[in-house]
Amino acid sequence: MHDEPEVAVLRLGHRPGRDDRMTTHVALTARALGADRAVLVGDTSQSTETVEAVTERFGGPFAVERVDEWRPLLREWDGRVVHLTMYGEPVQRVQGAVRAAHADGDPLLVVVGSQKVPFEVYDAADWNVAVTNQPHSEVAGLAVFLDRLFDGRELEREWTDAEKRVVPTETGKKVVDADERGEPSSE
Amino acid sequence: MHDEPEVAVLRLGHRPGRDDRMTTHVALTARALGADRAVLVGDTSQSTETVEAVTERFGGPFAVERVDEWRPLLREWDGRVVHLTMYGEPVQRVQGAVRAAHADGDPLLVVVGSQKVPFEVYDAADWNVAVTNQPHSEVAGLAVFLDRLFDGRELEREWTDAEKRVVPTETGKKVVDADERGEPSSE
Repeated sequence: MHDEPEVAVLRLGHRPGRDDRMTTHVALTARALGADRAVLVGDTSQSTETVEAVTERFGGPFAVERVDEWRPLLREWDGRVVHLTMYGEPVQRVQGAVRAAHADGDPLLVVVGSQKVPFEVYDAADWNVAVTNQPHSEVAGLAVFLDRLFDGRELEREWTDAEKRVVPTETGKKVVDADERGEPSSE
Repeated sequence: MHDEPEVAVLRLGHRPGRDDRMTTHVALTARALGADRAVLVGDTSQSTETVEAVTERFGGPFAVERVDEWRPLLREWDGRVVHLTMYGEPVQRVQGAVRAAHADGDPLLVVVGSQKVPFEVYDAADWNVAVTNQPHSEVAGLAVFLDRLFDGRELEREWTDAEKRVVPTETGKKVVDADERGEPSSE
């Protein structure tokens, strides 16, 4: 979140066409759950555009960018690197150390892969972190990791420069212009 | 989890072909993060088979089933119903009430939709719950909800009847036969 050291999410292993929705969901999850930036590798312009449109409509700050090569980012990252993988150490065991580093001022690069992540990523990571050692979803793993990293603070954040705002309701849907207060009259 | 009142995940709005991976990820997330059962509606046999194969390999108990109609399940559910939606009440505000109901013995049906969920679902739900009021991913929303419902207990669960087991490691991948202890010699 913008008043803390940066948290960026790097999405590896995108296969054009086949992975468009998963990559979009990774980036939207990064945005919704407190990361500052998503970096999408390769032919990911469709995902990039979707996330930019969401940020325009529902607010930021959040950056999404497309790069051709991920190795320079990983190599030159000035902070700590977390790699989410089902083979890693349990999140509940390492989250304290990751939080402490972030609180001490270290930016975090959170690497989210797919099936085949090169060994150099495991090696470059300060922590290889498993949200369970079971196969499930990189989107789910990222979500639980971010919620635990920020300890729920991300759910209370404010959004700026939004066009629209959802007003929480017990039943149904209420969306108002972002500068409205969401009182019943604005439904 | 199997020593607690049942938690079942009902996946609505599956579009064959287009949603196969998202539906698979919803069900695998349900399995990994402590739900007992996933119910997939419509032409979802591909997802069902994938999840069954994962359970066979990495253990259970976990049930996945395919149904043609979801209305009977929702109507006849003997417990509480949670509907995850970006329009609902913040998870951090309602999680205490949901946890209490579950701890008191109520089975939970967690409904996960996609773009268009009929109003009757909002109406049938005891709680419409938002994991942020931002658009992101049903997989991410489900993951955070389950982690908060079980308060991390789901990360410590044991798996039975597994063929393979991942041994958490700082760097790299270690998978052993499920009856092995994961000492270095079994790598």
